[in-house]
Amino acid sequence: MYPIVPGHEITGIITEVGCNVSNFKVGDRAGVGCLAASCLNCEYCKDGQENYCDQLQFTYNGIFWDGSITYGGYSKFLVADHRYVVRIPENLPMDAAAPLLCAGITVFNPLKDSNLLDSPGKRIGIVGLGGLGHVAVKFGKAFGHHVTIISTSPSKEKEAKERLGADDFIISTNREQMQSKSRTLDFILDTVSAEHSLGPTLELLKVNGTLAIVGAPDKPLELPSFPLILGKRAVKGSIIGGIKETQEMLDVCGKHNITCEIEVVTPNQINEAFERLAKNDVKYRFVINISRKSSNL
Amino acid sequence: MYPIVPGHEITGIITEVGCNVSNFKVGDRAGVGCLAASCLNCEYCKDGQENYCDQLQFTYNGIFWDGSITYGGYSKFLVADHRYVVRIPENLPMDAAAPLLCAGITVFNPLKDSNLLDSPGKRIGIVGLGGLGHVAVKFGKAFGHHVTIISTSPSKEKEAKERLGADDFIISTNREQMQSKSRTLDFILDTVSAEHSLGPTLELLKVNGTLAIVGAPDKPLELPSFPLILGKRAVKGSIIGGIKETQEMLDVCGKHNITCEIEVVTPNQINEAFERLAKNDVKYRFVINISRKSSNL
Repeated sequence: MYPIVPGHEITGIITEVGCNVSNFKVGDRAGVGCLAASCLNCEYCKDGQENYCDQLQFTYNGIFWDGSITYGGYSKFLVADHRYVVRIPENLPMDAAAPLLCAGITVFNPLKDSNLLDSPGKRIGIVGLGGLGHVAVKFGKAFGHHVTIISTSPSKEKEAKERLGADDFIISTNREQMQSKSRTLDFILDTVSAEHSLGPTLELLKVNGTLAIVGAPDKPLELPSFPLILGKRAVKGSIIGGIKETQEMLDVCGKHNITCEIEVVTPNQINEAFERLAKNDVKYRFVINISRKSSNL
Repeated sequence: MYPIVPGHEITGIITEVGCNVSNFKVGDRAGVGCLAASCLNCEYCKDGQENYCDQLQFTYNGIFWDGSITYGGYSKFLVADHRYVVRIPENLPMDAAAPLLCAGITVFNPLKDSNLLDSPGKRIGIVGLGGLGHVAVKFGKAFGHHVTIISTSPSKEKEAKERLGADDFIISTNREQMQSKSRTLDFILDTVSAEHSLGPTLELLKVNGTLAIVGAPDKPLELPSFPLILGKRAVKGSIIGGIKETQEMLDVCGKHNITCEIEVVTPNQINEAFERLAKNDVKYRFVINISRKSSNL
């Protein structure tokens, strides 16, 4: 529905609150993610899983309760219902915290669901080192796990280990290397949106291991039954998280000082940033500083 | 490795025990399933999950500890290590209990793993009504659940409901019917070994639902990411179960009087039975009575 105002990883300062809002005040550091509205009444809404409500409306190009179309974060101001607003911890910079509202919660939820927040010492794998994967590595290390990156790009190894703290790095196209790591990981998070077979990744998991899928390729994933069955493995999907859990994730980030690695651009650099995105030329997320007039990319 | 003696769903009376065997005596009603030996030392063997030991040897065409080749149940006698032998409850007929040793434990394990033994009132689906599926229906009903069969064969509906007690029956090729049942099931067990897409089945699951796969198609299954991710669903695999759990399953069958629906054949009818199997002409499992000379099929 045009005109569209995109943007669903949004941070800002509250400039005004409605008369019935008691949980936020002017001057608060606030965040808005993917969710603009949901039914509030279904079992998922009541259970803090608004993200699975079947009347869910997104932050942009959704239809709000009053029938208006929702506009996202590429804007100087944003109006959001207080139930879909979260707090940004004081110690986190607003720009580097912004992508946590989608990329962060997307990888936090499966880690939490697999009980990886409070049980250190597991061996976890992250497939794909991009906007989602690099935050997952930070979470994995903050929670005390051994983190292996599984990637098609040998060029990313040095930085992954030195800057992000990854413990191991496997080239997924190197069959020997993959086979030598068979049955070594407890959990794998697959962040890749390109079409791929899950077979070789599943083989890396121990018996009873879980492969969490958060990328969404257009074509079906290939799921060979043998590594699934013979290793009693599970493939799980999830999309972002509920509002309560998003706040929990931000608080965890505040505690562990976790933010995203970003490049800040100004509004007049958006087209250039999109062109670079199409070439995978970003480490690891572009953030638009709406209030800045211009800068060098 | 020829000669092969197949047969891995075996029941019989113990005629002799080794001098170190204390858990069985001559005259006991015994069962042997898929497992003949495993390493006994790995984490899976120690945890009652011998079926995932990577040195696992099967009941036939496996290599036993002493280097001999294992021979299965198409035989008047079978020698098995006592650690891989289970007891058949007194109230279960030996022939109808035999398929429990593989078909039974194969469907019991995912039901147990999804906590469906002691939490009645769930809505569960069974894909495929054959040797495995029909036992799963009996378990589902015995454990107090609402059971829906998802099948390609309309002709199976009447019997499924009247004889097996299924509550509902969906034709998987009927798109409208499938869509009308979207997000209605808590758990689905897929017993189909033919190639198929998991997408339509996943859509039947509620948010957080689990699709357990126990069939093993040669070609990879198609796993579309959207129903997986948007419904926070899981696809899990498993193969049979450990010995301790197989005994637990048999005891549960004894308690609920669950056996398989079978056609008993004599050794000289085996080839005929194989031909009928190839045409899916069996309800629901053939069992060979080795001690009987002949009968009409």
